[in-house]
Amino acid sequence: MELSPILVEKIVRAALEEDLGHGHDITTKAIVARGTNVRCVLRARKDGVLAGLAPCMLTFALCVPDAQLELEVNDGALLKEGQSIATISGEASGILTAERTGLNFLIHLSGIATMTRRYVDAVRDTSAKICDTRKTLPGLRTLQKYAVRKGGGHNHRFGLDDAILIKDNHIAVAGSIETALRLARQNSGHMVRVEIEVDSLAQLDEVLAFQKKNGGVDVVMFDNFALPDLKKAVKKVDGVLVTEASGGVTLETVKAIAETGVDYISVGALTHSAPALDIGLDFETA
Amino acid sequence: MELSPILVEKIVRAALEEDLGHGHDITTKAIVARGTNVRCVLRARKDGVLAGLAPCMLTFALCVPDAQLELEVNDGALLKEGQSIATISGEASGILTAERTGLNFLIHLSGIATMTRRYVDAVRDTSAKICDTRKTLPGLRTLQKYAVRKGGGHNHRFGLDDAILIKDNHIAVAGSIETALRLARQNSGHMVRVEIEVDSLAQLDEVLAFQKKNGGVDVVMFDNFALPDLKKAVKKVDGVLVTEASGGVTLETVKAIAETGVDYISVGALTHSAPALDIGLDFETA
Amino acid sequence: MELSPILVEKIVRAALEEDLGHGHDITTKAIVARGTNVRCVLRARKDGVLAGLAPCMLTFALCVPDAQLELEVNDGALLKEGQSIATISGEASGILTAERTGLNFLIHLSGIATMTRRYVDAVRDTSAKICDTRKTLPGLRTLQKYAVRKGGGHNHRFGLDDAILIKDNHIAVAGSIETALRLARQNSGHMVRVEIEVDSLAQLDEVLAFQKKNGGVDVVMFDNFALPDLKKAVKKVDGVLVTEASGGVTLETVKAIAETGVDYISVGALTHSAPALDIGLDFETA
Amino acid sequence: MELSPILVEKIVRAALEEDLGHGHDITTKAIVARGTNVRCVLRARKDGVLAGLAPCMLTFALCVPDAQLELEVNDGALLKEGQSIATISGEASGILTAERTGLNFLIHLSGIATMTRRYVDAVRDTSAKICDTRKTLPGLRTLQKYAVRKGGGHNHRFGLDDAILIKDNHIAVAGSIETALRLARQNSGHMVRVEIEVDSLAQLDEVLAFQKKNGGVDVVMFDNFALPDLKKAVKKVDGVLVTEASGGVTLETVKAIAETGVDYISVGALTHSAPALDIGLDFETA
Amino acid sequence: MELSPILVEKIVRAALEEDLGHGHDITTKAIVARGTNVRCVLRARKDGVLAGLAPCMLTFALCVPDAQLELEVNDGALLKEGQSIATISGEASGILTAERTGLNFLIHLSGIATMTRRYVDAVRDTSAKICDTRKTLPGLRTLQKYAVRKGGGHNHRFGLDDAILIKDNHIAVAGSIETALRLARQNSGHMVRVEIEVDSLAQLDEVLAFQKKNGGVDVVMFDNFALPDLKKAVKKVDGVLVTEASGGVTLETVKAIAETGVDYISVGALTHSAPALDIGLDFETA
Amino acid sequence: MELSPILVEKIVRAALEEDLGHGHDITTKAIVARGTNVRCVLRARKDGVLAGLAPCMLTFALCVPDAQLELEVNDGALLKEGQSIATISGEASGILTAERTGLNFLIHLSGIATMTRRYVDAVRDTSAKICDTRKTLPGLRTLQKYAVRKGGGHNHRFGLDDAILIKDNHIAVAGSIETALRLARQNSGHMVRVEIEVDSLAQLDEVLAFQKKNGGVDVVMFDNFALPDLKKAVKKVDGVLVTEASGGVTLETVKAIAETGVDYISVGALTHSAPALDIGLDFETA
Repeated sequence: MELSPILVEKIVRAALEEDLGHGHDITTKAIVARGTNVRCVLRARKDGVLAGLAPCMLTFALCVPDAQLELEVNDGALLKEGQSIATISGEASGILTAERTGLNFLIHLSGIATMTRRYVDAVRDTSAKICDTRKTLPGLRTLQKYAVRKGGGHNHRFGLDDAILIKDNHIAVAGSIETALRLARQNSGHMVRVEIEVDSLAQLDEVLAFQKKNGGVDVVMFDNFALPDLKKAVKKVDGVLVTEASGGVTLETVKAIAETGVDYISVGALTHSAPALDIGLDFETA
Repeated sequence: MELSPILVEKIVRAALEEDLGHGHDITTKAIVARGTNVRCVLRARKDGVLAGLAPCMLTFALCVPDAQLELEVNDGALLKEGQSIATISGEASGILTAERTGLNFLIHLSGIATMTRRYVDAVRDTSAKICDTRKTLPGLRTLQKYAVRKGGGHNHRFGLDDAILIKDNHIAVAGSIETALRLARQNSGHMVRVEIEVDSLAQLDEVLAFQKKNGGVDVVMFDNFALPDLKKAVKKVDGVLVTEASGGVTLETVKAIAETGVDYISVGALTHSAPALDIGLDFETA
Repeated sequence: MELSPILVEKIVRAALEEDLGHGHDITTKAIVARGTNVRCVLRARKDGVLAGLAPCMLTFALCVPDAQLELEVNDGALLKEGQSIATISGEASGILTAERTGLNFLIHLSGIATMTRRYVDAVRDTSAKICDTRKTLPGLRTLQKYAVRKGGGHNHRFGLDDAILIKDNHIAVAGSIETALRLARQNSGHMVRVEIEVDSLAQLDEVLAFQKKNGGVDVVMFDNFALPDLKKAVKKVDGVLVTEASGGVTLETVKAIAETGVDYISVGALTHSAPALDIGLDFETA
Repeated sequence: MELSPILVEKIVRAALEEDLGHGHDITTKAIVARGTNVRCVLRARKDGVLAGLAPCMLTFALCVPDAQLELEVNDGALLKEGQSIATISGEASGILTAERTGLNFLIHLSGIATMTRRYVDAVRDTSAKICDTRKTLPGLRTLQKYAVRKGGGHNHRFGLDDAILIKDNHIAVAGSIETALRLARQNSGHMVRVEIEVDSLAQLDEVLAFQKKNGGVDVVMFDNFALPDLKKAVKKVDGVLVTEASGGVTLETVKAIAETGVDYISVGALTHSAPALDIGLDFETA
Repeated sequence: MELSPILVEKIVRAALEEDLGHGHDITTKAIVARGTNVRCVLRARKDGVLAGLAPCMLTFALCVPDAQLELEVNDGALLKEGQSIATISGEASGILTAERTGLNFLIHLSGIATMTRRYVDAVRDTSAKICDTRKTLPGLRTLQKYAVRKGGGHNHRFGLDDAILIKDNHIAVAGSIETALRLARQNSGHMVRVEIEVDSLAQLDEVLAFQKKNGGVDVVMFDNFALPDLKKAVKKVDGVLVTEASGGVTLETVKAIAETGVDYISVGALTHSAPALDIGLDFETA
Repeated sequence: MELSPILVEKIVRAALEEDLGHGHDITTKAIVARGTNVRCVLRARKDGVLAGLAPCMLTFALCVPDAQLELEVNDGALLKEGQSIATISGEASGILTAERTGLNFLIHLSGIATMTRRYVDAVRDTSAKICDTRKTLPGLRTLQKYAVRKGGGHNHRFGLDDAILIKDNHIAVAGSIETALRLARQNSGHMVRVEIEVDSLAQLDEVLAFQKKNGGVDVVMFDNFALPDLKKAVKKVDGVLVTEASGGVTLETVKAIAETGVDYISVGALTHSAPALDIGLDFETA
C-alpha cells in the first residue's frame, strides 16, 4: 500500500469542508441547474512531473455522483505543456464545486515532483540520491513525501518516531558524541536506524571511533560542509556508514556536492519551497 | 477575533500528531534526560516579514510544560537577517520535540507574508491592492490568508460559500452573462457580494449593461487582459464597479498592471508558490 | 452544490451515534429477526412545507443495507395532512433502528420551512423578503438555513466570517458610527458586504452621510423601530442602501412592517422557535 | 457527574467552529481594538426557567482569555423579566465574538426548561410526572434532556441502547405481544428495563397476562388513549406496572390525563417544539 | 441492530490508521507488485469460539478493492483447531496490509468469547448466568461485550449512564443504604434499573427492608461473599430481587457459586484478562 | 518525549466518553451531593510492575476539578501486594465517575508490564532481549508498547510504516528471498531497517549469501525453529545480522531459546494475552 486510502479520504474530505465553509457553493447553487452534464480535461499548462492523482480524483468523485474519471497518465509521468492528464465527465455543478480543491492537490504535489526531478536530473551522472526532510507543510507530509518519490527522490524519515537522528543540540545536551550515540543505541529498538549529524571532520572522527568500537550507527550527516571537507569526509567514512550531505543545497550547488561521492543529499526546499505546477481544467462540452 | 484559537489548536495538535507518528520522539527519549533546561532564540536567517507566531508558539506550549515564551516582535514585523524573534525557555526535551513542527508553521507563513510584501511594495506608488486567491494548500487556507494580510495584502473570498464569483464556465453553462448575473442576484442573499470574470471588453460591456439596468454586481475581474485592454476596461467601468485583474501576475508585471488604475490584483502564487523564509532555533544555553 | 454531502454525512453519522449510544438498538436486537422485509411510508400528519429529505434518507440508507428509497415529493413541497412523502423498503430491523433519527431531521427542518412559509405568505403582496438570523441551534445552522430557503425565505449571513454586521456594541466600542464604518470598510476585503444596525433616525442620518461621502456600506438594519419611524427611515434611505427591519417580528406584525417598504425582514424565531411539523412513518406490510 | 464536561466542551468547540466558519470574526477584527475591556450582564427578557449555563459560560471562556464570569443564579432558577443571570467581564473583542453562540445555547435550553415547567405546573396537584421522549434535535439530546430535568421533568430513555421500548411495529414484526415480550426479556440483560406500548385495553390484557405468568415487564405505555379508556387502563394495571401516557399531549389536555392516575406523561414537544426563551447580553461599560 | 456499523467502521479505520502510521505499508510497497491476486483462508489454530468477523472483514474490505469475502461460519461458532473460518480473495498487496489489523480484532474478540464459553459451560447444570463488567479495555467496550454474548454470556450495564449501580463508596458518601436507595430511586427515571452492592447479610437486610417498604430496587449484588453466606443471602432474597455474585470469580470457583442459586455471576476477567485465541491467515495460492 | 501528551489526552477523552455514554454518571448524579471531598489511595492488590500512570491520572484530572494527585512511585516500579501507588484527593463525585476508566488503563498496562517482566527475568542470565510484536489491541498499541518497555522489554516495529519486515507470504509473492531482499533494499529509504523471516536453515543461507554480496539486511527472524536448528542458525549468522526468534514462545520455553544465543525473542502474548494486574482504589476518608 503506497498511500493509505483512509488517509487520502480524510484529507480530501477536510479540504472540501474547508472550501465549502458553511456547506455550499453559492455560485454554482445560484447559477447551474441540475442535469447539465459536461466533459472536462485536466491539462498541464507547463512541463513538469505529475503527482497527486489520488486526492484530486477523489475530490471529484465525492462531489460528482456517477462521475466518469479516465486517467491518461499516472503519477510520475513527465508532462509536456498542453498534455491532457485525465478526463472527467458528469454533472457540471459537482465538477465546478470540486474544481479548485482537486486542482490544489494536483498543482502542489506536481510542483514538488517537478522540483525533485530537477535535482535528480542534476545529479544523474553521479551515484548520489536526492532525499527530502521533515521541513514539510503541516498536515501534508505523507502526500508531499509521496510526491518526492514520484519525482525520483527518496524519503528521509517520516517523523520523530521512525528513526533516530542526532542533531547538534542533542549532542550538546548529551555532553558528547560518544554519550549521545551510546544512549541512542542502548535505548532504541533493533528495528530503528541511527543517524548522527556532524559539523566538522573532528566530530566525524569521534563517530567513526565509536562505530569501530561499538557498531550500531547507520548514517552520518554532514551539515553545511564545504566541498573540500565533504570530499575528505566521504573518503574517511569509506563505506562504513551511509553518508548524507545537508544544508543550503541548491540546483546550482547540488552537482558538485554529488560529485564528492556522498550517498544522499537532503533538500528541504523540495517540500517547503516548491512552486506549484500550472495545471488547469478545461471544459470541453457544456 | 483575527484567528480562531479553536482552529489554531486543532491544526497544531494535528501537526504534532503527524510528526510524532506512533506517539513519541525516539531520539529525544533515548538521549535527553528530563530536567535539563535550555534557553533558545527563534532567529531570522534572511530578511523577510514575520507571520505564524500563534501556531508556532502553541506548538512549544503543548510540548513543554511551563515553557516561558517571550515575543520580541509581532506578526507583520519586518525581519532583518539575524534578528531574534522570540525566546523559548524550558525543558530541553520538549523544545527539541516541538522544534521542527513549530518552525514549519513559521517558515511557511512568513514565506507567504514575505512574498506578499514584495508585491505590495512593487505597487506602492499606485492605488492598487494585492489580494490572494483560493489556490491555497489543503487544510492551511485560513492560516495562509492570515499571512497574506500580515504581508500587507488583502483577502479575496475564503471559500465557495462566502461570496459569488462567476467564472467562464459558469457563464458557459448559464448560456449568457446576462442570465448568469440575473440568476446570481436572484438566488443569493443580500449579504453576499457578486463578482464576475470577463475575458474581453465585449463581455465587460454586457456586465455594465446589466449593472446599469439591474444593479447588484459588485466586482468585475479581468482575466488575463493585455495591458492596453486592461486600461480601457478600467476606464469603461469608471468607478461603477470594483475592478480586479487576474492571471499570470508576476513581480515583473505587477507594477504595470497596477498603473492601469485597477483596484485589486489577485496573485495565486502568494499561497501556492511562496518559498519558505529561513528561520531557525538557536540553543543559547544547555 | 446546495448542501455539502460531506457535511450531511457527518451530521447524520453523529446523530446515529447519539441515538445508538453504546452501539446497538437493544429492542430491535432482541425482538426482530433478520430477514423480515417491510415497506413503509413517510407521511405528513399535518399540512406544512417539507425540508430535510437528504439527512433523513441518508439515515435510512446507513442503517438498512440495500434499502429502496423512493421520493414522491421534494424539499419545498407543500404537504397536505395524510400525504405520502416517500416509501422506504428493506429489512425491518434497520428501518426500526433508523426511524426516530431520520424523522427527527425531517420534523425539525420541515417545521422551520413551514413557519418560514407562513411569514412569506403574510408579506406576499409586498416587496419585502423574509430572512433568517444567526439565532440557530448549535451544530444545525447550515441545515436550518437550508430549510428557511425551502420555505421561501432568504438567508442572512451564515457566520461571523462571511459578512460584516456592525451592531450597537461595536459602535459603542468604536466610539461613533463614522469610526465604525470607516474601520469596517478599511479592514475588510472587496468581497465582503457591510451592514450596520441603527437604533434611531439620527443614527441613520450618520450612516447616510458616511455613505454619501465614502460609499462602501451595503445594508442598513433598523432595530426595533416603531412603524412610523420605520416608514420614515425607508424613505430617507431612498434606495441608496438595502434596508432590513429586525426585532420582535411576529406573524401578527410582519405584514405592517413589510408595508413600510423595507427590503428584508429578519426573523429569529424561524430557527430558534419553530415547532416541529408532525410527520410519521407508517409500516404498510410486514 | 450531571453533565460530562468532555461532551460540553466538544459541543461548544463545534458551535464556535460553526459560527467562525473560515476562522475569524471579521466585524470585530475590523472594528474592535485589542485592550478594550467591558462588563456585560446576561439578562432575562421574559419570565422563564434557566438552563444551559455550562455551555454558555464555556463559550465565553474559550473566546475571552482571563474572562471573569460570575453567576448570580443557577440552572433551574425561575427567572423574572429583567433579572440578571451572570456578569461577564473581559476583552470586548472576545465577548462580542462569543455572544451569539453562547446565547444560542442559553435561549434554547432555557426555552425547553420553561416549557417543561409549564407542564409540570399544570399537573402539580396530581401524582403524574412529566417526561421527555427521543424526539430531540440531532446532536443536542443530552443537553436537551438536561434542560427537561431543570424544568422539573423526568427523562425517558436516552437512546436505543439503554432501555427496551416495544412499539406497535415491533409487535407487528414479532407476531404477538406475548412473543415480543418473551423475546425482549430473554434477550436482554438484567440491568435493562422493558416497556411496551399498547393501543387498546385488549392489548393491555395481553401484557398483564404475560406479566402475571412471567414477570419481567416494567412499564406499559398507553398510546393515544381516550380519557375514559386511560382511566380504565390505569385501574386494570393497579400498580403492577409503571404506567405512561403518550401521544398528542398539550398544555390544555395534560391535567385531565394526569387525573386518570397515570404515573408518567411523555411530551415530545418539550424537545422538538419549545420556543426559545428571550435572554440578552447587555453591555454595561465600554 | 446488534452492532452499530457506524461504530465498527470508526474503530476499524482508526485501527488501520494506527498500523499504517505515516500512511503506507513500506514492506508491501517495496516488494509486492500490483496485479498479483491471492486466495487466503482464515483458520483457527486452536479450539475456541468465534467473535469479531464484522471488524475483521471490514478491515480487509477497506484495504482490498473488490475483495471477495466468503464466510464459512458465523460469530458464536465453536471452532475446531484447523477449521477454516472464511476465505478472502483479491490483490495480494491489500491483503498483506490488512492481515495483522484484521487478525488483531479476531483473535482478541474470539479470546473473550472462548473464555466466556468456558464459564458458561462450567455452570451449565445450574440456573446461573455469566455476565461481564465495566472492566474493559478503553475504546473496545462495545466490541468486547458483543464477544461476551457470542460466548453465551450476558451483559451487565454498558456505562455509567444506562443503569444505577450503588457501590460501597456511594453508600459511604450517602451515609446509609436507606438514603442511597431513596436518592437513587427519587433521582432516576422510570426506565432505569437500580442495583445495589452489599458486603454483608446485615446490609442485605437493610436493602430488603427498603424494598418491602418502597419498592424500586431491581438487583442486589453480593460482593465477595463466602459460599455459605451467599447461599443464605439468596434464600433471604427469595426471588424478590434479581441476585448477582461478584468478586474474584474463577473457573475453579464458579460452579460452586452458581449452585447457591444466585441468578447472575459477573466476571471481570472476561474482558480484562482473556488471552487471545490463535487464528491465522493461510495463503493458499499466489 | 516518551509518550505524546496529545495522544494520551485523545485516548483518555475517548475512554471517558465511552463510559459516560449519553453524557452522565447517573448513580453519582442521583446520590452524591456536590461538596463532599474524599481522599483515596490507588493500591496494588497483587505483586507486579506498574505502568499507565499518565492516562490514569489524566482521567481523574479531567473529572475532578482541582484534584490533588500525588504519586508515590513511577511507571516501572515493582509493586508489592498492598503497596500504595498514588493518592487522589478531591470531590467524591468526580472521583467516583473517573474510578473505573482510570483503573482500566492502569490494570491493563500494568498487566502487560508484569508479564513482560516475567519474560525478562526468565532470560536474565543470557544476552537475549525480550521484544513485542504488532499483535496488539486496536487503538492501544502505543500505550501497550510503552508498557512493554516499563517491564524491561524492547519494542519491535510500531507499524507497517517504520521498518521493513519480509514475511513468508512476501517471499512467496516475490518469488524468492533474493528478489524480495533486492526489492526491499532498492525501494526503501536509508533510514529504514530491513528484517526478513526465514523458516529453515536453507532460507537462512540464501539471506546470508545476499547480505555478503549486497549488504543492506539488518535483522533475520527465525520463525518457529526447533532449538537445535536455532542454535545452528545463530552460529551461522555469526554476528553479521541481528537475530530474532519468534513463534509460540512461552515462559516455559523462553530460557532455552535465549540460551541459543539469539539476540531478540519476540512474544506476541505480551500485548494480546496479558491478564490485568489487580489494582484498586481505596476510599480512606469520606
